[in-house]
This record gives sequence, structure tokens and C-alpha cells, in this order.
Amino acid sequence: MRLSEVPTPALTVEMGAFERNLARMHDFFSDRPCDVRPHVKAHKTPAIAERQRAAGGVGFCCATVYEAEVFADHGFDDLLIANEICDPTKIARLRVLAERVRLIVAVDSEASVDLLAGTDLDVLVDVNVGMPRCGVPPSEAVAVARAAEASGLHVRGVMGYEGHVTVMEDVARRAEATRKSMDVLLAVGDDLRASSFDVGIVSAGSTLTYDVTGAIDGITEVQAGSYALMDTTFSRSSPFEEALGCLTTVLAVHDNIAVLDAGLKTLSLDHGNPELPNDVPADVLYLSDEHTTLVIREEFDAKPGDRVFLRPSHVDPTVNLHDVLYAFRGDDVEDVWTVAARGYGRP
Amino acid sequence: MRLSEVPTPALTVEMGAFERNLARMHDFFSDRPCDVRPHVKAHKTPAIAERQRAAGGVGFCCATVYEAEVFADHGFDDLLIANEICDPTKIARLRVLAERVRLIVAVDSEASVDLLAGTDLDVLVDVNVGMPRCGVPPSEAVAVARAAEASGLHVRGVMGYEGHVTVMEDVARRAEATRKSMDVLLAVGDDLRASSFDVGIVSAGSTLTYDVTGAIDGITEVQAGSYALMDTTFSRSSPFEEALGCLTTVLAVHDNIAVLDAGLKTLSLDHGNPELPNDVPADVLYLSDEHTTLVIREEFDAKPGDRVFLRPSHVDPTVNLHDVLYAFRGDDVEDVWTVAARGYGRP
Repeated sequence: MRLSEVPTPALTVEMGAFERNLARMHDFFSDRPCDVRPHVKAHKTPAIAERQRAAGGVGFCCATVYEAEVFADHGFDDLLIANEICDPTKIARLRVLAERVRLIVAVDSEASVDLLAGTDLDVLVDVNVGMPRCGVPPSEAVAVARAAEASGLHVRGVMGYEGHVTVMEDVARRAEATRKSMDVLLAVGDDLRASSFDVGIVSAGSTLTYDVTGAIDGITEVQAGSYALMDTTFSRSSPFEEALGCLTTVLAVHDNIAVLDAGLKTLSLDHGNPELPNDVPADVLYLSDEHTTLVIREEFDAKPGDRVFLRPSHVDPTVNLHDVLYAFRGDDVEDVWTVAARGYGRP
Repeated sequence: MRLSEVPTPALTVEMGAFERNLARMHDFFSDRPCDVRPHVKAHKTPAIAERQRAAGGVGFCCATVYEAEVFADHGFDDLLIANEICDPTKIARLRVLAERVRLIVAVDSEASVDLLAGTDLDVLVDVNVGMPRCGVPPSEAVAVARAAEASGLHVRGVMGYEGHVTVMEDVARRAEATRKSMDVLLAVGDDLRASSFDVGIVSAGSTLTYDVTGAIDGITEVQAGSYALMDTTFSRSSPFEEALGCLTTVLAVHDNIAVLDAGLKTLSLDHGNPELPNDVPADVLYLSDEHTTLVIREEFDAKPGDRVFLRPSHVDPTVNLHDVLYAFRGDDVEDVWTVAARGYGRP
């Protein structure tokens, strides 16, 4: 299959950039005591996870029970659900999963522990390290760990997501804020050890902080997802390349307006509009359901039926819109990967 | 199944509001010469289209070839693809579709006509009535119609989408702008008739303008989609009720922050954040992939495991994130509907 035979709109993965991204991340961890645990929420695609495992990824992170189920079905047997699971309808599913794979789940309150009571699950205590979302306040972490053990759960360590630093574009400032967050997490680890808990895992990090968190003594694993495919937003603040693209067909050119056949059901806009390659003399005006409308800056010789790539602004929710990714090199489509864990499944 | 047994996050349809929305729209057209042609892009769900057909919907609109294929598979045999199809890989699929159902496709340029040459398809000339997107400039519509006939296509009429007026919240101003757009479309219809084309169809409209377009002599059908499910954005400017909801589970309550298990992979944010029901004393701070973080305004007695509804801001791209919709009345889930035309299909 050639790129010209791919029906549009389509998400594509340029294999050169993709392979360089994997090499860059996994080479960094190859001679360190810290591992990288790739986050499947960024791609939901077993074919990508297989390549991350081959490159040295140790275990995988999931955001949802459904992601864990799908990746267990595909032979991935070391899974951390890096979120609290509080929906009572999912507890039985966690029990089934734990019989199939090495499973760890996050807890961040006595209430989140109570909901898992009797499951015999391994857990990490999720600590607030500066991001206002989930995560127990540091001073209450030991109490949550004690509640977990009292409920028959097994505390394996701590985790903390320093997501608030990813908005800092200045590298030095981001590194400083990251170290501050990791100091909080490591101190909570020490608190738990002082209370006789076995803290084998100290899990943190992201694509934008991997080189800082991965170099800190005591951090045992880094969670990173975006690095493999990368988008316009995070590529501005990291050394990784945009491997993800969106192939579109030109639908119309009228006066100074051109229209592409990809819209907001094709590309997630929460990090802003997609961008055009530098050699397209136009700007994105707005997106509607199935259209991207461009304003033409100067001569633009495109006509209906021609192809144009758009550059997505946010990998994770954009991939989640699609059932397949087209992996290509040059003009050859080498593989069509299934986004197997897209969505939440069917009851 | 009870609502409490639905795994979250889940999109739900409150059947009382849904049925009142259908009655309101279809009753308006029951004694008029104009028909309503429901747009399936808003729900992609055959179970909803069946109810729209039973209520009086005449034929259906689709936005994509994939939607048309899926609805043809479900027995819908009168389909207007209200967009230009310029991707060369889809022409053979259009031919197959046209053998199965009564199919009409939009064209808006000689180039878009050339791409369909030899298909023997029925087409509408899509006219720019004020929205900067697709649609031929009115003065060039006859030339496009002539090109279509010369290419073996069959011109059945004209269509125009007055999407630019949907941002006008003032009812009188919106009605005035709509009438102006319809004058343009009707004049193009007359131009085509003067050039001996048989203009049987004059198709326009939307949920926000149905009562204006549907009352204009010469408009033969109104395209409307959002009315069935409705969201916070369009319910402010129309008489339809929010039937669509997003059921979530509380994951955490820490200090003045609460977190729900639905994020930007659950709800499309292009029309803004989702809103909370009036009786929840909190405000939406931000969404991440799988979380909605709330700031608690005053006493909020929710705890992890409790359920909270969010109110989506944009029906079409939100439904497109889900594989199923839970249709409920009171606390009973009456049906689980498959969003069969979600996404773009697999090659």
C-alpha cells in the first residue's frame, strides 16, 4: 500500500521519527538503575507497545481498566493502572485482571482504599506533588498506606505525577520544579519506610521531565507516553520529533479559502488547532466536525483531490479518535496498526 | 440494568427529554410542504435514526462515506452525503453505495465534479450562502451544474448550509441572517431552473434555524442533527432540551478539589468545558485525558465512588468518542445503543 491509497482523513506514523524517538528515550535509561514504564494512554496501540518493550520498556502504565484489559489480551503482563479506580462496577474486573497479569493500582484516600477492600490487590500510594488533581496530601500518605494494608491490599510503593510542570516552557525552571516535586515524593517514600512499609517502587515522571526524574536517586521508574508519537505542543519543549501526522484531502479552494477533509472528529483541539507543514502557504482558520478551513496566504496551487498533512497538537486524545494508525516510510505504508484500546469498550 | 450498574464514564440519553425533542422537531414539519432530513453526524446511532424515521424524518443526511455505508447496512435507503467527496480512494465505495440506496452527494466546483466523473451519481450543487467553508460562489453555480451534467452526473437540486448564523444568540438577528442566506440559495435554484436544470431539492437548515428555513416557500428539506440529543451550547439558543449526559464517578475529594473519572477523551471541549448540574456546588477547573477537576464552592458531600452527571457542550464530537449510549428513564436503563458509525472504519 502507498500513502496515496490511504483513505482520508487518516492518522499516520512516520517510522524514521518514531524509531529515533524510541531510541532517544530508551537509550537514556539503558545504563541507569531507573526504568522507563511507557504509558499506553498515549497510543492505545499494542503494535507500538511491542516496539517499546523491545527497546527496553519495563512494564506498562495504563490510565483505565479497559486499557489494562486490552493490553493483557495482547500479552502484556506487567501493568500499572496509574489512576484511582472508584467505580464499583469495575472492582470485579480488577480481580479478574489481577489473576492474569502482575497488576498494580493507585490509591489516594481511605475512601479509594475502602472501595478495593477484599481484592488482595497490589497498590501504590498516589501522592500530590504539586498538581491539583488526584494524589493524597503528603502528610496523609502513611494513613492511606495503613488503611490499605488493613483492607488486605499490598502497598508496593508510591507514585506522583508532576503534571503541573509540563506547562513550563523554560527548561531550567521546569527542571527545578520537577526536582522540588520529586523531593516531596521521595520524602513520602521515606515516611512509609519509617512506618515499616516496603517501598520498592517510586514511580513518577513524564516525557517532558524524563531526563530530570530519571537521573534522581531513589526514583525507580519513569512514566512516559507522548515521546513515541509526539505533537506540536510537546515537541516545542522536548527533543522528540513529530512522528504523528494527519493525512487529509483537499475538498475545495474558493478565493482565499481552502478546505481539508479532517475536522474536530479527527483531531483533538484541547491543545489548540493543528498546524500546517512549513511549505504550505496557508493558516488554519477553524475546524468543524469534518472540515479544516484554511486561509491562503499567497499562491497555493492545491486543488480538490490533493493531499495535505496536518500536524496534531495533542497526541493522546487525537489517537483516541481513530481505529487505526498508518505506519509509513517514504511513500510506503509498512503496516496498519490497530488502536485496540480506543474508547471504553462495550458492556 | 440500573443506572448505578453502568460503568463510567458513560454517555447517557434521558428518554423523556429525547422524546420531547423528537416530537417538537417532527411535529413542526408534519403539516408543511417542507420535510426534515435528520443529520446522522450528530449521533451516528441507527437506534436513534429509527426513532427519527418513525417520527416523520424523510431520508437522512450523512457527513462521510463511512456513515453512509453503516446506515445503508442498517436499512436506511435514502441518504444525502451533504459534503464533497474528493478522496480518490472513496469513489469506488460511492459507486457500491449508489447500487444499494438512493444516494446523493454534494459538489461545489468543477474539480469536485471531475473526481466523480463516470460514477453516474445524483448530486446537489453546494452553494456558499455566507459560511466560509465549502460551497460554490453563487455566480458560479450554473457552471458547476453544467460540468456535472457533462460528466454524467445528475443534478437534483441545490443545498446551502447557513452555519455562520449559529453563533448569533439573538433570535431575531439569527432569523434575519438565515432569511438572507436562503434568498441566496433560492436565487441560485432559480438560476439553475432558468438554465433548464430540474431543481427538485432545495436543502438547507440546521437545528438552530429549522423554524425559519422550514417556513420559507421553496425550501424543500431541512437538515438538522443536534435537536435529538442537544448540548449546553445549542440549548441556550433553541427550545430543545439536554437529553445527553455524561455519567461519571467521583475519584477523589481533597480540600477544595474534587475529581471525576471523565476527561477530554470522554467529552469534546471545542465548545468549552462541560458544565455541572445546578445542584452540584462546584465549578469545572480543567479537564485532562481521563479526569475532570472541580473546584468546590461550598459544602460538597460527595465521596469517591459517588456518581455525578456532567453536561456536554457539543453533541457531535462527544458522541463520536463513544461506542455506546445508555438510554435511561428514571433509574432504569431501557436500552444500550451502539454508536455504529463512530470514527472512519477500518481498511
